[in-house]
Amino acid sequence: MASEAPIGIFDSGIGGLTVAHAIARVLPAERLSYFGDTAHMPYGDRSPELVRSWSVRIAEHLLDQGCKAIVIACNSASATAAAAVRDLAGEAVPVLDVISPVVRAVAGQGHARIGVIGTRATIGSGIYGRTLRDALRESGRDGVVEEWATPLLAPLIEEGWQDHALMDPVLLSYLDAAGWAPDSSGAIDALIPGCTHYPLAMAAMRRVLGEQVDVVDGPGIVAESVRTQLAEEGLLHSGPLAGDHRFSVSDLTPGFERSATRFFGHGLDLAYDPLWA
Amino acid sequence: MASEAPIGIFDSGIGGLTVAHAIARVLPAERLSYFGDTAHMPYGDRSPELVRSWSVRIAEHLLDQGCKAIVIACNSASATAAAAVRDLAGEAVPVLDVISPVVRAVAGQGHARIGVIGTRATIGSGIYGRTLRDALRESGRDGVVEEWATPLLAPLIEEGWQDHALMDPVLLSYLDAAGWAPDSSGAIDALIPGCTHYPLAMAAMRRVLGEQVDVVDGPGIVAESVRTQLAEEGLLHSGPLAGDHRFSVSDLTPGFERSATRFFGHGLDLAYDPLWA
Repeated sequence: MASEAPIGIFDSGIGGLTVAHAIARVLPAERLSYFGDTAHMPYGDRSPELVRSWSVRIAEHLLDQGCKAIVIACNSASATAAAAVRDLAGEAVPVLDVISPVVRAVAGQGHARIGVIGTRATIGSGIYGRTLRDALRESGRDGVVEEWATPLLAPLIEEGWQDHALMDPVLLSYLDAAGWAPDSSGAIDALIPGCTHYPLAMAAMRRVLGEQVDVVDGPGIVAESVRTQLAEEGLLHSGPLAGDHRFSVSDLTPGFERSATRFFGHGLDLAYDPLWA
Repeated sequence: MASEAPIGIFDSGIGGLTVAHAIARVLPAERLSYFGDTAHMPYGDRSPELVRSWSVRIAEHLLDQGCKAIVIACNSASATAAAAVRDLAGEAVPVLDVISPVVRAVAGQGHARIGVIGTRATIGSGIYGRTLRDALRESGRDGVVEEWATPLLAPLIEEGWQDHALMDPVLLSYLDAAGWAPDSSGAIDALIPGCTHYPLAMAAMRRVLGEQVDVVDGPGIVAESVRTQLAEEGLLHSGPLAGDHRFSVSDLTPGFERSATRFFGHGLDLAYDPLWA
């Protein structure tokens, strides 16, 4: 596999562009091919079977483009479809999800109480709690892990309300319901924002939780992990940018184009790949 | 077409069960066949082309079951796919949407300022404003019509927050942004809740808008319109219930089953019809 080949990245929609942005920042010589399944977003409430079948079809599409690695930039798909995508990709193409690197990183930090938030699918799968407890046990550390579904946060962020006057009360309401509110007996000292939309609301989370609480930078950790794995497999590209990035979606509307710019941090062109038409 | 045949009803998901519930109340002898496209919900942000192609496929599915009429119980699909579904159904099977009957009813009520809320797709289509202004002009009435997209309301209602402490501030925030707040110069005297989820938040809307404002009961108006049209075409069933209702979805999860009970008002069994598998 040539190091000039693109890194394939996919998500249920546009939120995964926060991960693509972090990878482009950490690995500026790499060419990216991003696919957002805007015809089916959000994955967060769907059945595992459906998320798995869509993810495998998208991975085929990225492999057809000659991608040298695949990043599953969607927590719901990482939770339910990572094994199926690895089976498809085989040995030659590394497949990275957005959960394992974050779990490894957080397990090494010595937090006493860790909270995880995400969609109903991600939290319902229990994958963060299970893998994080395993990782803590393996490293001989103590640490309480609790998970709470926060399904309103992604719609709020899509509406651009991450700094709206109502964002903080919504966050506080979820923290209260989870028993994690600052100064309560269940107060956490680290929060994992387990959804690709949430990085846009990091400021609000830090505002509400206070400076003592570590709000984990998922995309940054994933991007570092992509660098490490590509280097280990001799797939890292150096020198000038290997070629233009490609961003594509399965349904194209002006709304998705506007959102893409917000999530990636600057303007980009979306191509329409009618994978299901 | 036999009057014993079921009435087909479809929606992007489970919200259309508010319409099915109203039809079952007004026409207790009629058998219903409901299809919720939970694999693709919500339609509110998708392109018109995609909503149209999904709607036509679902209408075929209902016609295959021998339905005597089709009710498009989704505002986004009513706005973009009603003509295509009518073409498919032909003369023999009446197709009702959830927008036209509401527009006709409201245009006859003499309101001075009418506000319409809904998803981005419904409001972006401008269909309520356009058809309501036409209906007012035809009846020789004055009346200002304004539309505002309120994409957070459906997720809030799906989360069960319609009576949460944060529901009223979110509604007020939208009313302020639209310029319709009570006691403001733009205050409305009627509100059309143009999304099938919104009937669950009627109490909140009345609380925030006050008693002077008419919050329109869309499902009730649609159900009366179904009765009138079936009677005109000699398709109305009388006597005992024509048979068991059927409720089906294109993706089945415990979450969809719980929501279905909330939206229909009492327990029901969901069948899985894998229309896209």
